[in-house]
Amino acid sequence: MSGCGTAPLPGLPEAVTICEVGPRDGLQNEPRPVDTGVKAEFIERLADAGHRVIEATSMVHPKWVPQLADAEEVLRRVDRRPGVRYPVLVPNERGLRRALDLGVSDIAVFASATESFAQANLNRTVAASLDMFAPVIGLAREAGLTVRGYLSMCWGDPWEGAVPTAQVVDVATRLISLGCTELSLGDTIGVATPGRVGALLGALTAAGVPIDRIAVHFHDTYGQGLANTLVALQHGVTTVDTSAGGLGGCPYARSATGNLATEDLLWQLEGLGVRTGVDLTKLVQTSVWLAGHLSRESPSAVVRALGEPQEG
Amino acid sequence: MSGCGTAPLPGLPEAVTICEVGPRDGLQNEPRPVDTGVKAEFIERLADAGHRVIEATSMVHPKWVPQLADAEEVLRRVDRRPGVRYPVLVPNERGLRRALDLGVSDIAVFASATESFAQANLNRTVAASLDMFAPVIGLAREAGLTVRGYLSMCWGDPWEGAVPTAQVVDVATRLISLGCTELSLGDTIGVATPGRVGALLGALTAAGVPIDRIAVHFHDTYGQGLANTLVALQHGVTTVDTSAGGLGGCPYARSATGNLATEDLLWQLEGLGVRTGVDLTKLVQTSVWLAGHLSRESPSAVVRALGEPQEG
Repeated sequence: MSGCGTAPLPGLPEAVTICEVGPRDGLQNEPRPVDTGVKAEFIERLADAGHRVIEATSMVHPKWVPQLADAEEVLRRVDRRPGVRYPVLVPNERGLRRALDLGVSDIAVFASATESFAQANLNRTVAASLDMFAPVIGLAREAGLTVRGYLSMCWGDPWEGAVPTAQVVDVATRLISLGCTELSLGDTIGVATPGRVGALLGALTAAGVPIDRIAVHFHDTYGQGLANTLVALQHGVTTVDTSAGGLGGCPYARSATGNLATEDLLWQLEGLGVRTGVDLTKLVQTSVWLAGHLSRESPSAVVRALGEPQEG
Repeated sequence: MSGCGTAPLPGLPEAVTICEVGPRDGLQNEPRPVDTGVKAEFIERLADAGHRVIEATSMVHPKWVPQLADAEEVLRRVDRRPGVRYPVLVPNERGLRRALDLGVSDIAVFASATESFAQANLNRTVAASLDMFAPVIGLAREAGLTVRGYLSMCWGDPWEGAVPTAQVVDVATRLISLGCTELSLGDTIGVATPGRVGALLGALTAAGVPIDRIAVHFHDTYGQGLANTLVALQHGVTTVDTSAGGLGGCPYARSATGNLATEDLLWQLEGLGVRTGVDLTKLVQTSVWLAGHLSRESPSAVVRALGEPQEG
């Protein structure tokens, strides 16, 4: 496209690492069970497309997340490749032991910035949940693992409304103190707008959290995911969580609350000349293939625009 | 939300004028005819919600756009209010005469940045279409009207691919020379990304087009509408075209190619503290009401998240 100029945006990085959360965060919200073989093939296809960080599954008890009851079998089937990280969510020490037995080298814990969601999701206070995570993070780090700390409800909470920045900074810095190697700031109900993204990132770096340890995890509930991501990148963030095809969120709910689609982000980053190492065409093919297995269309705008329906 | 900070983004304006294009650009793409009474009530509701620029209809021949064959009756039924502009699209001198007879004070003409789309949409070359518009614009300005010049395919064209910046600047400056009081830059197939938006705006201002005469008109085909708008605002643009509920584009096509939804933009601008004068709640109610008449859901994320289904 000679003569079709693009102007550099201030502060944009040259490259972005995408943390692909589809196999865990996406599939755990599917109403119908997905075959273990399909899950493993999904992960292989994501690696084929160029992903280097693929959140593979969760060691949460099947009573709570029956969709991922086959976590161990999925990990056994995937041919884990050198240079690709396959983080696994672990809720507690028991989950960590299971992960270590399977040779996992990257884990994630899932914390909340608000008391209401800590109670609803973890059945304990924020402080008690951090006490629960402390030995998990410590043991994992001793074993040489990376530990991603998810921090949910960073901008808004369905019970508490807008979440004060200082409260998020407090929980975030405690997760870093416990040994998390990365923080993923979640806009779990999708209410953030670009100015509030900038405010929280500024407060976190002012509190001493290095920007290169911060990832962002936006939901597209109000259509703000890409604009929020753009502002985060301009603030120095270089790791973004997305899911192939916008997987996640309940397709049967009137309000889609799913993850930002990896393809929509790739379209933007390719246009901006920011490298990701991920092949958009292969990823769209993967999302169309998976949509066939889920018997529904992807909510991603780019997948709908570029994808050809395939046999499931 | 005390303590829930928002950081100012560089270059953002304090206020934005939304040009609501739902009644014309939206409804002209509806596969089924919409009652004249519904159209008039839609426009009244948009004014009630606080809109001050509402593109009301089009004087295009009913053979080409049967959906707007009742243009004159719609204009007669709407109680046009002081302080609200109701631009009407006019294709030629005949259309202008009809508009003037109806007391219209704001018109728009629809040009193309590419030869392929000029042929497909206007059945003539770019130069010939400008020759056709020249007397329309001249007569309208003599009559004291404002004239908006739509410039479509500013970033990409389905036949020609990416459109060279110089080509867009050439047609844009000719429209301004002919007397257009405002230019609306259309990303008709939705392929723009933020860097290309900035490049075109920079080239236009370098060519002498004042930024306060430029509006942007993004489609959400690849999910980029809001991020592109944000960058345009940071470049000094203060007029943005959107449609209530994301009206426009064919709901039956696999790839939605509709307008950016006004509600999604309002959510972002409210979060950023940028004034629009439009009430989000009233607008969502309007979009839900209209969706009932169209027998389908709005594609807007914000409408789906906030709207309660109503009787049609």
